[in-house]
Amino acid sequence: MNFTGSNILSIKQFERNDIDKIFAVADTMKPYAQRKRATRVLDGAILGNMFFEASTRTRVSFGSAFNLLGGAVRETTGFESSALSKGESLYDTARVLSGYSDVICMRHPEAGSVSEFAKASRVPVINGGDGANEHPTQALLDLYTIRNELQSKGREVDGLRIAMIGDLKHGRTVHSLSQLLCLYNNIHVSLVSPKELAMPEYLIESLREAGHEVTISEELTTHISHVDIAYSTRIQEERFQSKEEADLYRGRFRLNQSIYTQYCEPNTVIMHPLPRDSRAEANELDSDLDQNPNLAIFRQADNGVLVRMALFALVLDVAHLVEKSAYDVPWFPGHRD
Amino acid sequence: MNFTGSNILSIKQFERNDIDKIFAVADTMKPYAQRKRATRVLDGAILGNMFFEASTRTRVSFGSAFNLLGGAVRETTGFESSALSKGESLYDTARVLSGYSDVICMRHPEAGSVSEFAKASRVPVINGGDGANEHPTQALLDLYTIRNELQSKGREVDGLRIAMIGDLKHGRTVHSLSQLLCLYNNIHVSLVSPKELAMPEYLIESLREAGHEVTISEELTTHISHVDIAYSTRIQEERFQSKEEADLYRGRFRLNQSIYTQYCEPNTVIMHPLPRDSRAEANELDSDLDQNPNLAIFRQADNGVLVRMALFALVLDVAHLVEKSAYDVPWFPGHRD
Amino acid sequence: MNFTGSNILSIKQFERNDIDKIFAVADTMKPYAQRKRATRVLDGAILGNMFFEASTRTRVSFGSAFNLLGGAVRETTGFESSALSKGESLYDTARVLSGYSDVICMRHPEAGSVSEFAKASRVPVINGGDGANEHPTQALLDLYTIRNELQSKGREVDGLRIAMIGDLKHGRTVHSLSQLLCLYNNIHVSLVSPKELAMPEYLIESLREAGHEVTISEELTTHISHVDIAYSTRIQEERFQSKEEADLYRGRFRLNQSIYTQYCEPNTVIMHPLPRDSRAEANELDSDLDQNPNLAIFRQADNGVLVRMALFALVLDVAHLVEKSAYDVPWFPGHRD
Repeated sequence: MNFTGSNILSIKQFERNDIDKIFAVADTMKPYAQRKRATRVLDGAILGNMFFEASTRTRVSFGSAFNLLGGAVRETTGFESSALSKGESLYDTARVLSGYSDVICMRHPEAGSVSEFAKASRVPVINGGDGANEHPTQALLDLYTIRNELQSKGREVDGLRIAMIGDLKHGRTVHSLSQLLCLYNNIHVSLVSPKELAMPEYLIESLREAGHEVTISEELTTHISHVDIAYSTRIQEERFQSKEEADLYRGRFRLNQSIYTQYCEPNTVIMHPLPRDSRAEANELDSDLDQNPNLAIFRQADNGVLVRMALFALVLDVAHLVEKSAYDVPWFPGHRD
Repeated sequence: MNFTGSNILSIKQFERNDIDKIFAVADTMKPYAQRKRATRVLDGAILGNMFFEASTRTRVSFGSAFNLLGGAVRETTGFESSALSKGESLYDTARVLSGYSDVICMRHPEAGSVSEFAKASRVPVINGGDGANEHPTQALLDLYTIRNELQSKGREVDGLRIAMIGDLKHGRTVHSLSQLLCLYNNIHVSLVSPKELAMPEYLIESLREAGHEVTISEELTTHISHVDIAYSTRIQEERFQSKEEADLYRGRFRLNQSIYTQYCEPNTVIMHPLPRDSRAEANELDSDLDQNPNLAIFRQADNGVLVRMALFALVLDVAHLVEKSAYDVPWFPGHRD
Repeated sequence: MNFTGSNILSIKQFERNDIDKIFAVADTMKPYAQRKRATRVLDGAILGNMFFEASTRTRVSFGSAFNLLGGAVRETTGFESSALSKGESLYDTARVLSGYSDVICMRHPEAGSVSEFAKASRVPVINGGDGANEHPTQALLDLYTIRNELQSKGREVDGLRIAMIGDLKHGRTVHSLSQLLCLYNNIHVSLVSPKELAMPEYLIESLREAGHEVTISEELTTHISHVDIAYSTRIQEERFQSKEEADLYRGRFRLNQSIYTQYCEPNTVIMHPLPRDSRAEANELDSDLDQNPNLAIFRQADNGVLVRMALFALVLDVAHLVEKSAYDVPWFPGHRD
């Protein structure tokens, strides 16, 4: 695809070489995100960061990514106070707001809303999550993380062995990631969930049509024993009839250091879309894994900034100018790895 | 008036040559708003964008206008959480906040509050709307739009024929616009509203004292047939005893493409202060007009940025420096007209 | 202490020469805060301004201080919408958010939360107030104000005579200020409060152990008659069983111009942490003092910007670079003293 001026609405719009391009640009963003260098390439540009549904992490990640390229950010959070709640159409909102910025990132609780908005916008729109539908930058940062973790071992995404664990029925992130994996070759996917929370059938079929091997199980330990990536997700309590029903599933997908040591191959990478529920009763991904160098959950979050910087640079067509506007960071750069 | 360091609180403070000056500066802002050029003239300056009442559109428009001049924006939205709600006086708030910025834009639900605040502020204050009282930048952008639409036909504001339609009793925007029109000559104003929602008598008298011709009617179609501008406003349901009462008035002021074709002169310009209620039952300004090139409602919104940029440049006395700090925009500039 | 890369969590971490250093750097910030000069020293740097509890004044003060140094600000306000409320640990939040910024300012309703957050952060963290625990930048700006007010009279903090007035039991600011004063010599402290709202015993002992003279009284007028500084605090109605109980104490600590004239030495300086309750029934610090040149409450607020700029410059190690990146302000600089 030609990125210049394009909207980023769905992972379905990407072919494999588009992904390659995004990741190649994301790689070049590392020195900026790690504060070795800074760049003014988007000095004077404005991001409209329109979060009609709250999401601190995603909102700040997009805003910081734009700041790291030298641009300014105008922001909206919440729905009730906006004109949308007074009957304004997404068409009108888009026509107006696109006069205030150079690119818009939008999150909205309704599926399809961001695409509808994008049709009327005069500037590129990036989907920051539209309800149960899509959250394409999360899928991209997950795949970018998988690619980087494998790369550090001299491997590629082709040939990946991955377990997806937990609530695979409702988890938007594992759905999108599965679709992206269909662009690659020869992947083994272990789907570990209670039957009631199984991955939707159409996604399983897509994976098999792509030539991937899919195994389905309700049992955690045997299925995390031969994978490169263990991708854990949250049991989303709010989706169940009662807390009691949710609790039935909880302990069975718990991953902690002793389970990891006993069952996983030595360098199995652990991922999670965050936020992780760290309360004692959560039984999800224990904090005793925090010192395990294979816990990649915070590298995932850091990668989100790189991927979002890359998308901004591509849709605004400045990827080739980033370095020309760069300079050394003169301030304390933090304790980064 | 001398703009440098002045507050912009009310349209009453302007004479005709002040308006001319604002509009002349607004004209010079077009290449920046349309992202052909960028400027760093206010690099290092800070706007305190204090919205003690929510208004996404106006807030972002002010913030973006300041960013477009190269400045930074600090922002507050909402009232409950602020010190004002703990009994702090506007005097104290102004003394404190004016130490944090170079210019303040303030919206507040109480009439007169912004003027009171401005008395204690050490930096210029721009009224972003103080309750039922004034919203001077909206009036300026409306008049700027009228002037531009006429100008593109080789005409001037003098001699304008305008219909104001809908709830003329409660509509702050049509009140302010009427007052501004008193600075011009030989205008025909058609006031179209139900008797119960008529324009206040004192404004009608002002228009007549200015030498303008005013006609008053409850009937839409005959009164939009010989005008340059049809300025439609929202039936503000919240002002009525009941939804049913509001509904009595609604259909009568509906403007859609077929009514436009049947009754209006070919190039009649349609304006509306936005947001427009686009729900099917609204019967206000139909979306089948969206492709009509004479629908100026989004040009109005865009003009808001130009007028606000002009006001910032004038009160901070940098209008003559904008171009000196300018550079070409290296990023994709959007699909703008 | 070595400021570079350090967290600013508590006033307990400072020795007297650390305070001297902060104040010396704060002094150099005056031309920037007063808009005679601007600086780009932190151009490209990002402040994560994380206010998980609302505080317009403190939040905007930190944000503006960072903007005044040329940096960008990403912001969060409120708690409910954040991942913290879904069970995310402060450890996880810190690991993630510290990837989005160069320094974090955090306010949080729970005592100790900011320190816990700071342990996991990869960038310096400044405590913007953690519940009943600490608000170190408020204590520093209070002491900086005392030092400046005395300095203008050729005096030093050593030898200070200060009255602290009002609710000394709950007032976080007077507690912290008392602890900072223990770093100085030969101070007379008059504690004026109802017995029920007395300064905690351990703080009184600290003051005495530092060699200071402490007098305790329930009576205002005699105890403000021989002081350099009268530091008034709010009767915090929300701490009492009833409004009626709070009202018992209110009138007794009222300070207005006639009381000032009758009882205070001519140049006694009046301070207050703000916000001041200016409603007629508040009986706290009357607005008839507003023209009194010894009312320092707004100089306190202005000093907050200087102290915060100094802390940013010190923890990011750019204090020596500020002037190199400086330029004259070309815009109207406001009506500043």
